[in-house]
Amino acid sequence: MNAERAIIARRRMVDRALGRYVPARGDTLSRAMRYSLFSGGKRLRSVLLLAAGEAVGGERRLLLPFACGIEMIHTYSLIHDDLPAIDDDALRRGKPTAHCVFGESTAILAGDALLTEAFRVMTSMSMGKGDAALSVVTAIRAIATAAGVRGMVGGQVADLEHEGKRVSLATVRGIHCRKTGALIGAASEAGGLVGGASGAALRALTGYGRALGLAVQIADDVRDAEASTAVTGKITRRDQQRGKATYVAVLGSAAAHAALRREVSRALRALRPLGDRARLLTQLARQVAEWGEAGARHSS
Amino acid sequence: MNAERAIIARRRMVDRALGRYVPARGDTLSRAMRYSLFSGGKRLRSVLLLAAGEAVGGERRLLLPFACGIEMIHTYSLIHDDLPAIDDDALRRGKPTAHCVFGESTAILAGDALLTEAFRVMTSMSMGKGDAALSVVTAIRAIATAAGVRGMVGGQVADLEHEGKRVSLATVRGIHCRKTGALIGAASEAGGLVGGASGAALRALTGYGRALGLAVQIADDVRDAEASTAVTGKITRRDQQRGKATYVAVLGSAAAHAALRREVSRALRALRPLGDRARLLTQLARQVAEWGEAGARHSS
Repeated sequence: MNAERAIIARRRMVDRALGRYVPARGDTLSRAMRYSLFSGGKRLRSVLLLAAGEAVGGERRLLLPFACGIEMIHTYSLIHDDLPAIDDDALRRGKPTAHCVFGESTAILAGDALLTEAFRVMTSMSMGKGDAALSVVTAIRAIATAAGVRGMVGGQVADLEHEGKRVSLATVRGIHCRKTGALIGAASEAGGLVGGASGAALRALTGYGRALGLAVQIADDVRDAEASTAVTGKITRRDQQRGKATYVAVLGSAAAHAALRREVSRALRALRPLGDRARLLTQLARQVAEWGEAGARHSS
Repeated sequence: MNAERAIIARRRMVDRALGRYVPARGDTLSRAMRYSLFSGGKRLRSVLLLAAGEAVGGERRLLLPFACGIEMIHTYSLIHDDLPAIDDDALRRGKPTAHCVFGESTAILAGDALLTEAFRVMTSMSMGKGDAALSVVTAIRAIATAAGVRGMVGGQVADLEHEGKRVSLATVRGIHCRKTGALIGAASEAGGLVGGASGAALRALTGYGRALGLAVQIADDVRDAEASTAVTGKITRRDQQRGKATYVAVLGSAAAHAALRREVSRALRALRPLGDRARLLTQLARQVAEWGEAGARHSS
């Protein structure tokens, strides 16, 4: 199976598992959770976690709950970021955002539920005694750290605080690394940890994840600035309207594209110690580069 | 040391540990998190977790991160419940609520951060190989389950959905058990799990926690209906204004008091297998009863 197909197969695997972990129960809360969870995301973080874990020989039985957990954390962050009090976005992945469909209170609580349930899911596998439990604890620590004040939430606050201000590249980079980079980095690292990696292999996965995480946010900046709503599925040019700190705002378009290519190269370089085992991870990095460039090609 | 003093000592221990886990860093996010975290709560859930773990011989080094984690989860839930889109409360523990002080976006994100950091804190202790990690995983699962769709968040949604409707006692009981009871039950259970309990001792702690959790919410209903704002530190009679499903609304005051006494008795009965080791847990149950009755005594 080629790498592209293998990625699609893992995406479907994650979708099926998410359907089991967040079942439809006919109530408003589960409807709201599933609406955002199954709204056509790329499953980058979950596929990345699986691919990282598989690259070091991890068991899918342990990796899949973590892949779903990190996707649930990502989804909660999108629901809360879109709220009227935060980024006030009405469109995401071509569909009305959760609070537009279910109201603000349900959107807040659906986000809370996804974040909480993520940790239930990541501790839901049956385990014998021994090392598996220790690696589960360490992986949860890595993910919670990346999603918390030193990572995603802290980055989101910094992002809001810098709206409309002149910022340096170092500041934008710092915000991006926390807001988006940290969780993607943790997906790669946690895959390695649950997969039993240590030493050079774990360092390779962590370095790869960090560079890829920054690349994803730069690609997002580029797409918001250059692609149309029809391509991105969300209302574009919002970053500029709000005076957001982005790579395009600070560097201009050409240099932002160069920065994206540079981070993707850095991610690929980090994978070298893994050799052939990094096939899917290599393909994921290429897709991120392609995704950033595609926005520009389709621009109006 | 008598039980009352021992409880105060543990409350201080939790306060000091929370100060280390959520340090003041001069930024808005940590200010907002600490504002709500150190606003004079009774620390019931954290002291209960410590007392449950100590009753079965658990190590404080492992119990304290869990005690702090559960207090952080409780605090996040208060911040989000008070939001304008949810219960729209302006006063809590005699102080303006988080969104009144820091704005809505910071309040949402401070809640998100507390919930996320709770799981970081609960996985922050250093562990050798072996059983400790397994009990940590099991305890996290119990807490996340109690805080998620089948517990606290699900109960909060049900609570909002039943506003202004005529409800049966069974419905109110079900909402209370999820909204408040589940997390308090999980505090007792997780203390037991991290403390290494199994069999009859773990069942005793779980049964005690569930009954106590329901008692706490009935006591809250009674206080909202009968005490003044000066006594409770929040604007009272809000339940009635909103047509909330409460024990007082369904049963009237006298029967609500009787239900409170009944659940406290049930909690105390559940502790019997633990004998003398349950001294602090017994005292905590008495304090919950006293707290419900005190509201009535001070009523105007």
